[in-house]
Amino acid sequence: MTKFDEATQAHRVDENTYDVCLDPGFAIGQALNGGYLLAVLLRAVTDASPHAHPVSTSAQFLRVPVTGPAQVELAPLKAGRTAAMTRATLVQDGRPVLETLVTTATLDPDAEPVWTGDPAAALPPVEDCVTLPPPKPESNMTLNDKMDLRFDPPSLGWLRGEPIGRPEMRAYFRLAEEQDPDPYVIALAVDALPPTVFSLGARGWAPTVELTWHLRALPAPGWLTLLGSGRLVRDGWFDEEVEVWDSAGRLVAQSRQLARVGRG
Amino acid sequence: MTKFDEATQAHRVDENTYDVCLDPGFAIGQALNGGYLLAVLLRAVTDASPHAHPVSTSAQFLRVPVTGPAQVELAPLKAGRTAAMTRATLVQDGRPVLETLVTTATLDPDAEPVWTGDPAAALPPVEDCVTLPPPKPESNMTLNDKMDLRFDPPSLGWLRGEPIGRPEMRAYFRLAEEQDPDPYVIALAVDALPPTVFSLGARGWAPTVELTWHLRALPAPGWLTLLGSGRLVRDGWFDEEVEVWDSAGRLVAQSRQLARVGRG
Repeated sequence: MTKFDEATQAHRVDENTYDVCLDPGFAIGQALNGGYLLAVLLRAVTDASPHAHPVSTSAQFLRVPVTGPAQVELAPLKAGRTAAMTRATLVQDGRPVLETLVTTATLDPDAEPVWTGDPAAALPPVEDCVTLPPPKPESNMTLNDKMDLRFDPPSLGWLRGEPIGRPEMRAYFRLAEEQDPDPYVIALAVDALPPTVFSLGARGWAPTVELTWHLRALPAPGWLTLLGSGRLVRDGWFDEEVEVWDSAGRLVAQSRQLARVGRG
Repeated sequence: MTKFDEATQAHRVDENTYDVCLDPGFAIGQALNGGYLLAVLLRAVTDASPHAHPVSTSAQFLRVPVTGPAQVELAPLKAGRTAAMTRATLVQDGRPVLETLVTTATLDPDAEPVWTGDPAAALPPVEDCVTLPPPKPESNMTLNDKMDLRFDPPSLGWLRGEPIGRPEMRAYFRLAEEQDPDPYVIALAVDALPPTVFSLGARGWAPTVELTWHLRALPAPGWLTLLGSGRLVRDGWFDEEVEVWDSAGRLVAQSRQLARVGRG
């Protein structure tokens, strides 16, 4: 079992309750990464579902949890032949932290696309991409050690005071430990990039309000490519879309989140 | 009060319960339009919220309701200064029809975009656009009479056996009766286009599994422009994105739905 699999385990208590333990290794300062929380929650949902894959997940981020014990509470809403729908809540100290609606289904790994849009705009080769500088120890950015992110160099222009001037962030992604990507790794990946508004010169914690992501195919082994973009920054709100492509050049996931621009 | 406002009324029973009446005028055959159901539900959510606007709505479509009485049941999850979060369920005969997570906030009508993407690709002038043919009476497509949709001509190529070969659907939209667009009209608009996969030659009922839409600004009076597109059709699933632009050329809403390709 990899460290990521261990950190996202969900232990069945009864039909609709799972015990989990939120791992201090996925922190962004005082908070835990939203994609990590989704991965933990989805372990419980798929374990209880007749279907294998979380094809659609919508999440409202209600509160910032602390590390340690928490529960996933499930409310099955519909179980059909093609798909099952479940409401799932991550609860800590009796209070909801993350409220989600999840659709599970069983994707055919061999299905060929009937239609697919333009392939990912090419990033430079991995060896020409750049990494984030090591975080200051007091920042408690433990998440950074868990992920291997290699950025298209302009996507980190904001670090040298040269933001590219449009909400864009592009990088290769894999776990730092050796592990093939799966739907839970993708849940982490869709919320792994720094906020796209950093490329507009914004800084500081940009809290996600709502995030919806769809699993469109099962990923091939190897690097994932994350393409982050946005359409509108207005009135303190911004949207962030992330497309996840696998090493075989296939679109495997789509996400969009609505978030607040940070004031840092 | 317009007919649309009347058909989407929600009457407060108690703090967390609203009575509604699903109107037979928004039917697509045996089903009711999903955007109409969202509009009804959002009336209840915003009535009960300290905030004015439904900025983010995620919905799972569980069952097909019938016309007539139904209830909206609310579960307040968080009430903050910037935003409130509510779980809202449309219930009929004791069974959930539509399960949603809604974030309400109060948008500033005068906020200027900090950044905005490319404006909508221009449609031809309204007078050069085309309408759907009148539906057969036995099809019970009563929704068509409620909406004034004027399509970019290639978007209806599938009607003459000439689908354009990519999942795209573009049209001007307004209610048939005179009414300025508001967030509830936009809820209808984001699910108003024929399925984008019709432009790939698919036909038949394409059930929405999940739909998330974000209200990004309050619309100016006049026509809305709906730009529908998709990224991937695979394994019986397709995504459909709709951008809603107002008559002042501003992006006012973004939606994405995950749906099943019809077998018609």
